[in-house]
Amino acid sequence: MKINPEIAKSFPDLYESALKYEERGRKNKLWQEQVQNELTLVGAEPNKVTWEFEIAEKHCNLIGNFHGGCVATVIDVCSSFAILTNQGKHKWQFVGVSTGLSVAYLNGMSPGQVARIECEVQHVGKSVGSVFTRVYNKEDNRLCYTSTHGKYRIDARL
Amino acid sequence: MKINPEIAKSFPDLYESALKYEERGRKNKLWQEQVQNELTLVGAEPNKVTWEFEIAEKHCNLIGNFHGGCVATVIDVCSSFAILTNQGKHKWQFVGVSTGLSVAYLNGMSPGQVARIECEVQHVGKSVGSVFTRVYNKEDNRLCYTSTHGKYRIDARL
Amino acid sequence: MKINPEIAKSFPDLYESALKYEERGRKNKLWQEQVQNELTLVGAEPNKVTWEFEIAEKHCNLIGNFHGGCVATVIDVCSSFAILTNQGKHKWQFVGVSTGLSVAYLNGMSPGQVARIECEVQHVGKSVGSVFTRVYNKEDNRLCYTSTHGKYRIDARL
Amino acid sequence: MKINPEIAKSFPDLYESALKYEERGRKNKLWQEQVQNELTLVGAEPNKVTWEFEIAEKHCNLIGNFHGGCVATVIDVCSSFAILTNQGKHKWQFVGVSTGLSVAYLNGMSPGQVARIECEVQHVGKSVGSVFTRVYNKEDNRLCYTSTHGKYRIDARL
Repeated sequence: MKINPEIAKSFPDLYESALKYEERGRKNKLWQEQVQNELTLVGAEPNKVTWEFEIAEKHCNLIGNFHGGCVATVIDVCSSFAILTNQGKHKWQFVGVSTGLSVAYLNGMSPGQVARIECEVQHVGKSVGSVFTRVYNKEDNRLCYTSTHGKYRIDARL
Repeated sequence: MKINPEIAKSFPDLYESALKYEERGRKNKLWQEQVQNELTLVGAEPNKVTWEFEIAEKHCNLIGNFHGGCVATVIDVCSSFAILTNQGKHKWQFVGVSTGLSVAYLNGMSPGQVARIECEVQHVGKSVGSVFTRVYNKEDNRLCYTSTHGKYRIDARL
Repeated sequence: MKINPEIAKSFPDLYESALKYEERGRKNKLWQEQVQNELTLVGAEPNKVTWEFEIAEKHCNLIGNFHGGCVATVIDVCSSFAILTNQGKHKWQFVGVSTGLSVAYLNGMSPGQVARIECEVQHVGKSVGSVFTRVYNKEDNRLCYTSTHGKYRIDARL
Repeated sequence: MKINPEIAKSFPDLYESALKYEERGRKNKLWQEQVQNELTLVGAEPNKVTWEFEIAEKHCNLIGNFHGGCVATVIDVCSSFAILTNQGKHKWQFVGVSTGLSVAYLNGMSPGQVARIECEVQHVGKSVGSVFTRVYNKEDNRLCYTSTHGKYRIDARL
């Protein structure tokens, strides 16, 4: 995971969390290993983060398309961090756990293409939150996948 | 992927597809590689397949839970094959592509535990289909995840 | 709303809630008025309720199909009451509010047909719950709609 | 249903469809009757429509909140029309039928408040389409509900 260093200024919590995530992921054999090296956190603003992801063959299925489960994995990771850009009265310290993840597959993507992932926080309440994500093909700006991700706040366990 | 050989008798198409999937997946570096060795197709009946999946640490997140993206991946793979147990008037030759995958995360699971994955076909029409999946912890039969998977029929490309 | 009086014995809370709902709904002009007279709570068991709904023309759209918004309304009402059949350690006193409602439309239904609505509780936790619903055409047992309904516990406000 | 007459210039198909819908709805006792008088189509641009909806008590539940089933109904109606603003190569003549409707309930609304409903087309393909909707409280611009609506193309039946 590469992280735009500019983000440290405006969103120090997000920056620290992403760094720690990256570092721990490198030391352990975890699911995130399959996608973290290809992910770049390119931008953050209040209630929004933008990522890029380079699709390799190992992220694809037998017919050469970005695998639905890998799309879900990337969106799960990216949209969770969006929670940390919220600065409302219920600001969470951690990204929480998922209550639901729903992905719509609109257009396929292939190895070599770069996905631009825009995650918008829709709601951060006392205990539940929601993030909407759009995934575009960076080449032609075609909308390829969208997702709604429901989160549940947890105490510090990371 | 291990496949109960009994399935060859009642669902030869399903059996062949799963064999081919397994074989091709072994030769290529694809997304399915991350889950296929831990999957066993234990049973099939009309409009239903049952799988088991052994959760390893590599399928988990930083807090030691079965990763939401891996849950989605396993459900995507398992529920797709369910389509091939349908024998209605619109019987599909291939499992199609995903139009949507929606997962509800009810209870967490951990490395060492075995997930029992029950996929029920809800609808197989001329061009769209839907599969509902329940994932239980085999140990205590606790329902941990559920999912609705929307499929779209494609011509033979596998 | 008609309620099978047998239910009072095994699920007094559910019975009382349904009675009160019906009574208050009759006195006020509320959204539930559009569906409550056609609904019958036919059965209840732990974590499950079964309803029947008589589809009239006023529940349909311009092409004579059970309207997607009315399907959602009926499922919202029916699946909420299912929560009261849960007797786990987090038993809720009230049905809570919705966090999400997701409906899959598999086959259409028409005026004069009766829908059988089976709602199964998937999870009732300290603060969130989930109910899965299947709607069948009573005539031929065809599965027509399915739904996942996410609930959030609230303090007594009814 | 009120329709901004400006829309006739840029989107004659959308304008005609909405007029016809309104007119037929007035003559018949259909589900749309419960919401159509409170709906105004305020704007349209390529792949987007914006509506306003005045919430009355009859759209609410027993605790005085905009009823989840009525929210779903309004979104179903509004987002269907969005399909007619698409001018891509697969332009549909009719709005199609629903394959799925998924609503996230983020914040409640009450009688007397006005909802601003923004529907964005995400995909219009040869046979399936998808529309994402955001519902705001017009008063304070708070995001209250979001939805993903899956559509399936049909031949002319309206």
